Amino acid sequence: MDPDQVAKAFVEHYYSTFDANRAGLANLYQDGSMLTFEGQKTQGSQNIVAKLIALPFQQCKHHITTVDCQPSGPAGGMLVFVSGNLQLSGEHHALKFSQMFHLMPTPQGSFYVFNDIFSQLSNAS
Amino acid sequence: MDPDQVAKAFVEHYYSTFDANRAGLANLYQDGSMLTFEGQKTQGSQNIVAKLIALPFQQCKHHITTVDCQPSGPAGGMLVFVSGNLQLSGEHHALKFSQMFHLMPTPQGSFYVFNDIFSQLSNAS
Repeated sequence: MDPDQVAKAFVEHYYSTFDANRAGLANLYQDGSMLTFEGQKTQGSQNIVAKLIALPFQQCKHHITTVDCQPSGPAGGMLVFVSGNLQLSGEHHALKFSQMFHLMPTPQGSFYVFNDIFSQLSNAS
Repeated sequence: MDPDQVAKAFVEHYYSTFDANRAGLANLYQDGSMLTFEGQKTQGSQNIVAKLIALPFQQCKHHITTVDCQPSGPAGGMLVFVSGNLQLSGEHHALKFSQMFHLMPTPQGSFYVFNDIFSQLSNAS
């Protein structure tokens, strides 16, 4: 399968799950998975999902602007780099964000998220 | 050495070299290195540096806002995720950008850039 198609399919699945039911993201991570969210580090599927559920907004909608991907090396991993806007319920302005995922293959022929780094882009320039 | 310190040192070296002498970036990449710049893919140190030199601005200055890093797996690689502003000479406004690097160790105990994805953040929200 074309890596760009895998990346786009992953991104659509990830953010639609995030926006509808954050707890449903748990099976995309494993025990060794790492999340850095706005500089705060978390490890392991359960801790990562707990962190995402505890974010101080109830409803949100991700709008994706760009998706780029590259193979990460001989282990069959894939780097997925996303930019977009995050609309929070009750807020007029969307937040710009960028996020990178390092997907690693599972024995079942799927992928899980080994690395995840999220950064909200400040408005200062 | 602390990975966060390695990441910060790399980022400072990379962007100060970019801003002073883009050709000097050649030894940070190798033949297998990949660059995706605003969706355009380039491979190999020589092609990557040629692409960076050919960008349609002569002088620029990167201002870094955040640097995050995570180990990428058992091969000893490191993911470095950067956000910041890019000031072009003669322009009033800086461009927001985010960029990720996948650094891999060299036999000499240093690192080279295996993956590089750059994205300028659009102003639309």
